[in-house]
Amino acid sequence: MREAEISRPALGRIPMYLRFLKGLPPSIRNISSTVIAKELGLGEVQVRKDLGALCGSGKPKVGYQRSELIESLQAFMTGEKVNAVIIGAGRLGKALLDYTGFEDFGISVLSAFDEKISEGNLSEGGKPILPMTEFSEFCSNNNVGIGIIAVPSESAQSVCNIFYDNGIRLMWCFAPCQLYKPADAVIQYENLALSLAHLKMQIK
Amino acid sequence: MREAEISRPALGRIPMYLRFLKGLPPSIRNISSTVIAKELGLGEVQVRKDLGALCGSGKPKVGYQRSELIESLQAFMTGEKVNAVIIGAGRLGKALLDYTGFEDFGISVLSAFDEKISEGNLSEGGKPILPMTEFSEFCSNNNVGIGIIAVPSESAQSVCNIFYDNGIRLMWCFAPCQLYKPADAVIQYENLALSLAHLKMQIK
Repeated sequence: MREAEISRPALGRIPMYLRFLKGLPPSIRNISSTVIAKELGLGEVQVRKDLGALCGSGKPKVGYQRSELIESLQAFMTGEKVNAVIIGAGRLGKALLDYTGFEDFGISVLSAFDEKISEGNLSEGGKPILPMTEFSEFCSNNNVGIGIIAVPSESAQSVCNIFYDNGIRLMWCFAPCQLYKPADAVIQYENLALSLAHLKMQIK
Repeated sequence: MREAEISRPALGRIPMYLRFLKGLPPSIRNISSTVIAKELGLGEVQVRKDLGALCGSGKPKVGYQRSELIESLQAFMTGEKVNAVIIGAGRLGKALLDYTGFEDFGISVLSAFDEKISEGNLSEGGKPILPMTEFSEFCSNNNVGIGIIAVPSESAQSVCNIFYDNGIRLMWCFAPCQLYKPADAVIQYENLALSLAHLKMQIK
């Protein structure tokens, strides 16, 4: 429940807080949000709000106990473990499959599936790339919470349907399209071209 | 100048408007924002605002001339052509190099560079992957406006500096880190792990 109240930017600052707190000399046992804000060049109100939402408020005059703060931030960032799978094992799908940054947030990308392959093989990072015929069985045997759509737009709707039919309600879609979905599914779109186009607009 | 006033979500709706307008039967020569909104399931105020910012307002009772509307939307979306280069030719760098969606927004990703290779070769999509020793010369010969940082966090700052020293002021960074930059550089961060973590939070 508490998690829902944390904004995406706040979530993004947790790794920065953790790096800073872990890097302090061992003699520092307590630290205030004022000091953290100053050292990281952030607004004091923002830091107080972030840490308040994540770890409760610090003690007046003393601040937070450093080890406790590290522990709560770490626990929050990892959260409950969730398994994800990818459909689409082209360059993007493979890049996502072997990307190591998801584990920090408690997300394991288990495998990628592709209808263009007929026999399972391993990615460069050693993860399974499997034919679509094995998809349903894989989902039954593993507790898959998130489906990643890494196919071209024209196949994205059928992949979305396959995820849904296999019980997956959260999807992350890299195809630049709009999908029809049942009310209880959540689709988050990641449009890389649009991101880059937005940056381009800042050319003076 | 006008471009700066368009929000990122509005930019993201342009492809949808274009698909819809191009798909209408030839007999339809004029169309109102009311009809567009209804057909696309968008708010009328939003559509009027988007199209007003991009193409001026339609004529009362008549709406927009379809062919003109398509032309302005297309021109806006493509904008001026800009060249981009990537440093880091790992899986992510290669996926970005061969991704075809950037051209729609007038962005050509010309090549990727990597210090781990000593001889140039081609990507699967046929684009050059070059050693870092050729980077400066390449930038002098091509008008490069955007630099894409696709290296691990620990190398991202030095890549940022290299882009800057070669006259590149707009950067798109995939490494999950915070970079120091001169005031006239713009860095847009793309944190994929954070995106997925945000989706994960919506598990009920």
